[in-house]
Amino acid sequence: MLGKLFGLGLGPGDPELVTVKAVRILKSVSAVAFPILEGKESFARSIADQYIPKEINQIPIVIPMTQDRLPAQKAYDKAAQEISEILDRGQDVACLCEGDPFFYGSFMYIFARLSKMYEVEIIPGVTSVTACAAAAKMPLLARNEHLTVIPGTLEPEDLRSRILNADAVVIMKVGRHLDKIKKVLEEVELSSEAVYVEYASLPAQKVLKLKNAPKTAPYFSMILVAKGADPWL
Amino acid sequence: MLGKLFGLGLGPGDPELVTVKAVRILKSVSAVAFPILEGKESFARSIADQYIPKEINQIPIVIPMTQDRLPAQKAYDKAAQEISEILDRGQDVACLCEGDPFFYGSFMYIFARLSKMYEVEIIPGVTSVTACAAAAKMPLLARNEHLTVIPGTLEPEDLRSRILNADAVVIMKVGRHLDKIKKVLEEVELSSEAVYVEYASLPAQKVLKLKNAPKTAPYFSMILVAKGADPWL
Repeated sequence: MLGKLFGLGLGPGDPELVTVKAVRILKSVSAVAFPILEGKESFARSIADQYIPKEINQIPIVIPMTQDRLPAQKAYDKAAQEISEILDRGQDVACLCEGDPFFYGSFMYIFARLSKMYEVEIIPGVTSVTACAAAAKMPLLARNEHLTVIPGTLEPEDLRSRILNADAVVIMKVGRHLDKIKKVLEEVELSSEAVYVEYASLPAQKVLKLKNAPKTAPYFSMILVAKGADPWL
Repeated sequence: MLGKLFGLGLGPGDPELVTVKAVRILKSVSAVAFPILEGKESFARSIADQYIPKEINQIPIVIPMTQDRLPAQKAYDKAAQEISEILDRGQDVACLCEGDPFFYGSFMYIFARLSKMYEVEIIPGVTSVTACAAAAKMPLLARNEHLTVIPGTLEPEDLRSRILNADAVVIMKVGRHLDKIKKVLEEVELSSEAVYVEYASLPAQKVLKLKNAPKTAPYFSMILVAKGADPWL
């Protein structure tokens, strides 16, 4: 009997935004694996901390800090190998994911390596998209409206057309792209409706009008624009 | 002292996908309010059922079955009035929402009526978007990809351009629009990549290739298309 692999969504950061199911699974598995940027704390690991039994086997997936894909691919290869050894012994493993495993989650790299050989269950989590909307008290979508989620890494021309073309826009991975995004939003005259959120649901959470956003944005920051044609009534 | 209003996201349907925070709040409030389509069960109420204390005050928001907005607006007016009477007594109220309160959630109509007068806290929930991706075992987004969420109610031309223009597409509110959506996906040659999911996370959950989708789709069904240019490695 092979063990089962869980892709465990843990939500945006507040340990209380973990689901009842994720808590139960954390108490049942033999090991947890989690991504960790070289030299940093694991964010996913920290969200789950209070729910992880002390005696559990822990598998850090150390991701090198580089834009080059190969070193990261090697890290996922190595982690997949370690996880498979535990699954082969018939023990279950949970891969910890901030947010949702399939929503910009690194779990998909483990999934791609192991899903053909082992039973895998994905536990969805609260994403930072709705956590930011909740923090900003900004309704995102109603009735027949549509939403576009884009990374801030896009080129200005691409950002502009996607922003103009949607009822509601969520710009993720703002970080060092803040100035570029601000400029595009000013050009299309949506700057005053835009809200900046960083560290949603964490003690360090900040919600600001875009014009008051700090000069330097962390990676876990987001800009929301709901065009608000609808009076929500 | 006025009471506090909670917009409580309860996730896609499985009671285990409720967050630890929502469970705690359900045990602390004096009343719960929940939408209920005339003559039906309340889906939000059913998700929360096992967490709601028996003695709690319950406020059904009965939404008439009509496309006309006015009767629904009157129902929200009446519910807002009932909720405010409880808040005025200094007691807290939770509005129950399937999925997430600000993601196609009817809570925004209560929010629009009460947020200027009372303290409101939004508790984000797992949306059906990531619950469907989890059920379909289909990674949605990685790296610099972007996502579009559209309602199936759009006109074919609008559906077509939005589908062609995104890396990953989630089509919600499929229901009676299934045939129209299928035709558009066939025309743009994305039909074979498309996955149909109904009742994600519930015992009745079905995950099918789009071509095997049933003739009649329920309201709570969704079509996912991840174009899969990226090998997820």
